[in-house]
Amino acid sequence: MKRLLMATLTAAAVLAALPAAAQFQKPEDAIKYRQSAFTVMGNHVGRIGAMASGRAPFDAKLAAESANIVATLSTLPAAGFVPGSDKGMPNRAKPEIWTDAAKFKAANDKMVVEVAKLDVAAKSGSLDAIKTAMGAVGGTCKACHDDFRAEKYSN
Amino acid sequence: MKRLLMATLTAAAVLAALPAAAQFQKPEDAIKYRQSAFTVMGNHVGRIGAMASGRAPFDAKLAAESANIVATLSTLPAAGFVPGSDKGMPNRAKPEIWTDAAKFKAANDKMVVEVAKLDVAAKSGSLDAIKTAMGAVGGTCKACHDDFRAEKYSN
Repeated sequence: MKRLLMATLTAAAVLAALPAAAQFQKPEDAIKYRQSAFTVMGNHVGRIGAMASGRAPFDAKLAAESANIVATLSTLPAAGFVPGSDKGMPNRAKPEIWTDAAKFKAANDKMVVEVAKLDVAAKSGSLDAIKTAMGAVGGTCKACHDDFRAEKYSN
Repeated sequence: MKRLLMATLTAAAVLAALPAAAQFQKPEDAIKYRQSAFTVMGNHVGRIGAMASGRAPFDAKLAAESANIVATLSTLPAAGFVPGSDKGMPNRAKPEIWTDAAKFKAANDKMVVEVAKLDVAAKSGSLDAIKTAMGAVGGTCKACHDDFRAEKYSN
């Protein structure tokens, strides 16, 4: 009975992993994909951050556009962390992404939630709401980078 | 009078160019940004293409999600082609992007229009509509790559 359960769970895990893995022909594709999504997200979080901190004039329309882009992209990078994609091209993924997968997933999910809140805040047009949401978003960026992103690129 | 007009036009051109340039601290940032947007777009166009060609099973929800991602990103890369960003890191931008800027803009705008149609088609859930839209989208990808993307990366 226990063996049947284990076999079922293993099969389920394999099936669940299939769609993500099938999106990429090789590890390099997965790395490029997740890095690209993060690059665009980082750029647009940065634009909102510049408005929130007063370094750039507040433009509600531009802030809402950027927040929509970040929210649309926020669910994508996770699929790029295919097992084995710590190698293939230079990247900064720490082994803990796969050895502590549950913690990584929780950190990722928290980012997605806070980014969704930022999207709502930006749509409201309230700079104060954006500032509050940005604080939480920035916290999720930093937490995940601290735990799961290496200082230097691998070779 | 003519000199005043020229000065005004020059100032207007500089001001118009400012927002795009201000998004990027250095040419490398602009190159990474446009390449990243294209990488994610290419991945998701590829997923829809696999469904349209029968290489992957048709999943209306996944197709609509990918089309939304592509449409959201489609307006971004243009800002990354800042003058001077043919250099800074390896990239495949041909000089014609800047020497024939009107043609490049037209090619870019056509892509944005056809991607928006693909988004509408994917939301409809009709595979036939998606196939038609994908043909047009693929045409705009190819046309722009043929004219404005070099075969090899620069150094």
